[in-house]
Amino acid sequence: MSSHWGNCLHISIFGQSHAPAIGVTLDNLPAGQPIDLEELNAFLARRAPGRGPTSTPRKEADQPELLCGLVNGFTCGAPLTAVIRNTNTRSQDYEELRDMPRPGHADYTAQVKYRGFQDLAGGGHFSGRLTAPLCIAGGICLQILKRQGVTVHAHIQRIASVEDRPFDPLGEQDLDFLTKMPLPVLCPEAASRMEEEILSARRQGDSVGGVVECMVQGLPAGVGSPMLESLESRIAGLLFGIPAVKGVEFGAGFAAAGLRGSENNDCFRPGTPVQTATNHSGGILGGISSGMPVVFRAAFKPTPSIAAAQETLRLSTGKTEILNVKGRHDPCIVPRAVPVVEAAAAIALLDAWMETKSLEGFL
Amino acid sequence: MSSHWGNCLHISIFGQSHAPAIGVTLDNLPAGQPIDLEELNAFLARRAPGRGPTSTPRKEADQPELLCGLVNGFTCGAPLTAVIRNTNTRSQDYEELRDMPRPGHADYTAQVKYRGFQDLAGGGHFSGRLTAPLCIAGGICLQILKRQGVTVHAHIQRIASVEDRPFDPLGEQDLDFLTKMPLPVLCPEAASRMEEEILSARRQGDSVGGVVECMVQGLPAGVGSPMLESLESRIAGLLFGIPAVKGVEFGAGFAAAGLRGSENNDCFRPGTPVQTATNHSGGILGGISSGMPVVFRAAFKPTPSIAAAQETLRLSTGKTEILNVKGRHDPCIVPRAVPVVEAAAAIALLDAWMETKSLEGFL
Amino acid sequence: MSSHWGNCLHISIFGQSHAPAIGVTLDNLPAGQPIDLEELNAFLARRAPGRGPTSTPRKEADQPELLCGLVNGFTCGAPLTAVIRNTNTRSQDYEELRDMPRPGHADYTAQVKYRGFQDLAGGGHFSGRLTAPLCIAGGICLQILKRQGVTVHAHIQRIASVEDRPFDPLGEQDLDFLTKMPLPVLCPEAASRMEEEILSARRQGDSVGGVVECMVQGLPAGVGSPMLESLESRIAGLLFGIPAVKGVEFGAGFAAAGLRGSENNDCFRPGTPVQTATNHSGGILGGISSGMPVVFRAAFKPTPSIAAAQETLRLSTGKTEILNVKGRHDPCIVPRAVPVVEAAAAIALLDAWMETKSLEGFL
Amino acid sequence: MSSHWGNCLHISIFGQSHAPAIGVTLDNLPAGQPIDLEELNAFLARRAPGRGPTSTPRKEADQPELLCGLVNGFTCGAPLTAVIRNTNTRSQDYEELRDMPRPGHADYTAQVKYRGFQDLAGGGHFSGRLTAPLCIAGGICLQILKRQGVTVHAHIQRIASVEDRPFDPLGEQDLDFLTKMPLPVLCPEAASRMEEEILSARRQGDSVGGVVECMVQGLPAGVGSPMLESLESRIAGLLFGIPAVKGVEFGAGFAAAGLRGSENNDCFRPGTPVQTATNHSGGILGGISSGMPVVFRAAFKPTPSIAAAQETLRLSTGKTEILNVKGRHDPCIVPRAVPVVEAAAAIALLDAWMETKSLEGFL
Repeated sequence: MSSHWGNCLHISIFGQSHAPAIGVTLDNLPAGQPIDLEELNAFLARRAPGRGPTSTPRKEADQPELLCGLVNGFTCGAPLTAVIRNTNTRSQDYEELRDMPRPGHADYTAQVKYRGFQDLAGGGHFSGRLTAPLCIAGGICLQILKRQGVTVHAHIQRIASVEDRPFDPLGEQDLDFLTKMPLPVLCPEAASRMEEEILSARRQGDSVGGVVECMVQGLPAGVGSPMLESLESRIAGLLFGIPAVKGVEFGAGFAAAGLRGSENNDCFRPGTPVQTATNHSGGILGGISSGMPVVFRAAFKPTPSIAAAQETLRLSTGKTEILNVKGRHDPCIVPRAVPVVEAAAAIALLDAWMETKSLEGFL
Repeated sequence: MSSHWGNCLHISIFGQSHAPAIGVTLDNLPAGQPIDLEELNAFLARRAPGRGPTSTPRKEADQPELLCGLVNGFTCGAPLTAVIRNTNTRSQDYEELRDMPRPGHADYTAQVKYRGFQDLAGGGHFSGRLTAPLCIAGGICLQILKRQGVTVHAHIQRIASVEDRPFDPLGEQDLDFLTKMPLPVLCPEAASRMEEEILSARRQGDSVGGVVECMVQGLPAGVGSPMLESLESRIAGLLFGIPAVKGVEFGAGFAAAGLRGSENNDCFRPGTPVQTATNHSGGILGGISSGMPVVFRAAFKPTPSIAAAQETLRLSTGKTEILNVKGRHDPCIVPRAVPVVEAAAAIALLDAWMETKSLEGFL
Repeated sequence: MSSHWGNCLHISIFGQSHAPAIGVTLDNLPAGQPIDLEELNAFLARRAPGRGPTSTPRKEADQPELLCGLVNGFTCGAPLTAVIRNTNTRSQDYEELRDMPRPGHADYTAQVKYRGFQDLAGGGHFSGRLTAPLCIAGGICLQILKRQGVTVHAHIQRIASVEDRPFDPLGEQDLDFLTKMPLPVLCPEAASRMEEEILSARRQGDSVGGVVECMVQGLPAGVGSPMLESLESRIAGLLFGIPAVKGVEFGAGFAAAGLRGSENNDCFRPGTPVQTATNHSGGILGGISSGMPVVFRAAFKPTPSIAAAQETLRLSTGKTEILNVKGRHDPCIVPRAVPVVEAAAAIALLDAWMETKSLEGFL
Repeated sequence: MSSHWGNCLHISIFGQSHAPAIGVTLDNLPAGQPIDLEELNAFLARRAPGRGPTSTPRKEADQPELLCGLVNGFTCGAPLTAVIRNTNTRSQDYEELRDMPRPGHADYTAQVKYRGFQDLAGGGHFSGRLTAPLCIAGGICLQILKRQGVTVHAHIQRIASVEDRPFDPLGEQDLDFLTKMPLPVLCPEAASRMEEEILSARRQGDSVGGVVECMVQGLPAGVGSPMLESLESRIAGLLFGIPAVKGVEFGAGFAAAGLRGSENNDCFRPGTPVQTATNHSGGILGGISSGMPVVFRAAFKPTPSIAAAQETLRLSTGKTEILNVKGRHDPCIVPRAVPVVEAAAAIALLDAWMETKSLEGFL
């Protein structure tokens, strides 16, 4: 199974880049939740291409059509489905990829798994375009969470070698300003240097990767589960569903491997709710939220579609050849990935929260 | 839901550290698979404590009893359940933790989620001891995979600041020697320096973390799925179910964020099966195996249970107090975590492989 | 969760009767399967209203639009989504039902569960109209099964007190003629008497129920599982998802309760594959197909929407009142339910078959 | 997958009749629920063989051992696992069944699915003995439901041709007396006639089937979901997991097929909660509980193991032979199935209720 997920809340993503449409179904949303479509569109716009000099000039009209699940702007308890029409014509350009798989793409692995029947056009179901329905689902979850006092914000923590300041993991910050920035960063000067990195890569027909950091504030303690359904497992499971994500870490993450226990342990402190003096755990202990901000980072590889010539294999001859990838591609996917990371987190959190609620009211 | 997982193969882990037993059920294993219990016990022994100067002197007799699912040493198609008896007496020492949660532990989050009814003794269901049934499940999957030509090996890539040489991600290496080493490393001199780091931490009543790197060889191309059920999502979902894991990366991982596309892309090369010149993708493209080795790393935080005094909160008074954690604990969990990482990978891979098989034979 | 289902094959149904659209997503279909849209439309036409004097004169243009999952008429391995636009305007007639729930309908239970936010128009997500996407999913599965030699046929076994001859459960019958009949029966004279029962009910502003019997031929032995995922559990689970189904039985079913073991047991007989002399088991032993035809029946209650006046409760006053249900409704849903039962069976069988395949190739 | 089930609450059943043990894991039970083991044992005793002249004289010591999930008699939030040791020696008698499958049993279908590796001894995982762990799970759910005011009771509605009076589906009855009867019936004289039917079958080396009717009282309105996760789908899915169940119906069930809509519709009536004048729907409308008693029936086929000689096929020769089934078997499984039906209902209801709770608290 490729594209459904969830325990209490259920998400099913569908579509290929050049199929008539892409979309998503959310099953088991609580009824009576107002969904602000303008706010949802504004959220989706943050993912849309063409927002600045760093992204692809392609235009996508990613206005979703809500097919069902809403009545007069409120969730009605039935599955909610939204679709986005694809306006790109199905191109014949892609046929060649069947025989000459692009390095770093899923062309070859799809060929093996689907035995040549996969949709090659525009990357098919593997396209980054499929993060648009993920954002629809996440944007809806974000609105529901926000009414419960939970906010989710991400910024670009790194592009190539340029780093932004990390979030203060103790939270209590108003981060809404990030949603207005084309390159959302905490340290404004980082943005211009990041932009330069991206433009430099584009000029050289190349691409760059980066890291997105995300912080959840307002999540109460007690959400999540030990072991195989840990909050980390759920969030990471969704994040690794975003094409190009190759690493995920929570709190101190990989750096924790270099710390002593006496440094890494977060001492509990008085407060309502209970606080910790530091937040190396990223707000999760034993797979369950601690009430401190949930903090995590996702590493994105550089866009594999680059203008520069690359060597690849012609499968039919078994010989290497030079491949020139056509089309216009983002030299860096990271700026557009920021809301996608927020979306993935929101879905995972709402699912985990609903599961926690399923246990309540029995005492 | 806390402790079950899977799509085709289904795993359900149960038990608490001081309950009568811990164990695991594997449902939907293929029938007719010989399971070598001696080999399984040898695998479990790698996780057992007390193997060297770096681990806790506690002794655990982790011999699993197979309750069902095997007939004359072969899987019979029925769910396979194995249990390990806990020999530790339920201690009253743990009651204090209800009011004085240990920093870095799940004491506090469990208290909130389970409203005081959680099992505190020995960490309950949150204990690292629950990785033993994960290893039973994984050890069985490893045997099945091995007969199909798939091997899974892990080494300690880092303890504190001491690093081992990384795996050559192009594979074709016999790595069985790692299974014999108390501190499995590629570069023998790293082992002694790692041991010194661990002993130094123990002497100071402290603990250290580390990184485990794992490589899967022999997995054919075409296993896995795009997006939400990607091979990365499945493996990471299980890895983040291991207590203490705070980061997971595949292939170049976080380092890919600093690479150019032209550097990170793995050019396809002739070969049977098809090869790539490099393996920054960690053997996974579009969530599907490429036929190259699957390579990933998991970061472990330092053991939160340390002998040194720590500050924590007494919940009933809302005041901070000094806590001295009792009991004998591993100053570093990483050496014992090596087979656990292999186990998690094996479970995820067999599940994904079975799903791939479910699609076969229709053409 | 309301409307998704499946283990290997995954179905997600969405839509409300008067929402912009209804539809379905099938995830994990094998790639490379040709889908004949004309054949699919012909299958859907069997469910469509307005085929004869016994059904509602409403017209529904149930031509599905395939949004994704198909390339050049072949499944491509990505989720397949099809939608049907609803052409009925959202009517205000339904608001009254919020306060005066119709007897036999979900108006009241939806009001309680969704706290007044449910979609009342046309029955919302509870409408029999939602069986159209179930038929899309089932029609696709039927085509895949047919290429593997498996056929699924149903007939009206009973309307009110008029019975058709039951299927010969030993099978080996060409039943395609049933798909051409407005009232599919084995004994033609039964059809005219059934029609008379339906028209008589309509004349009296009333409705009638019935029983649909279904037979699967060509399914090999060995598909299904013991206990909680038995073939009966899967088929029945889907059948009870069809609005109006109140009973399901396999083989001799309820009549088996009156038989002696010596009568009910099906003796094995020589043959390739192995045969049984009788088929009281309905082709399923221990939850697994025996290679004999799978035979089952589903009982449908009479349509709750009747023209005759009925008493109900006005919730706001707590007093009973007379309710006149508006709109034109089927006096009997059973003829249109015949392909729906086939669809449900096909989905369950393909899912179970894929699961069986997931276990193959390991020996 | 064979033996796990559930959405919010998760059940995993394991074991074979002659394996070291059988058992069950319940994952995601709410914490803090007292479990009365004496009450649980009393519930299991109702399923145990040897309670009267109508059952097998075999003795089973079905005392479950709770391996985990309970602390001081309260659920602790961790998975709860209970096992029952099998005391029967693995017999060699069963080997012959591999070549001479018993009519009406899973011997043949298991042979095909598991390719000869299935556990034949005592019926393996297909044995009726596996309903003991189902009863453990159900018995625990029953205790939790009871504290919420929900009771579940079943009686024998029919054995062979002898019928008991049906439940009054309007409920409000104290039915605890049924739990004390070896043959639980509403009309005492039915019991003696049923017993005579069973003894008569035994004398003739034969067996008889029957019908169990179950009624749930106190379940509030609003539990369940439309379509594929309807309350009927969930209950029926579990009931059809009980070996020997071949039919399930809710409310008027198959009889509804013969009613007019005006007869079958249940008019709403004043009351707190809202009542209906009749209960042909069996307390479920649109897959969701109406607040009226949930009423359903399950049909059991006669025990396939009979003493009388039967014809079967010797697979190795392809010739028919006479089979004499060895061992002592119940001439009628129905009396012991009564608590099993209650158990299945309780599991399905608690799961559905927890799911309903997952949606609460968002408004």
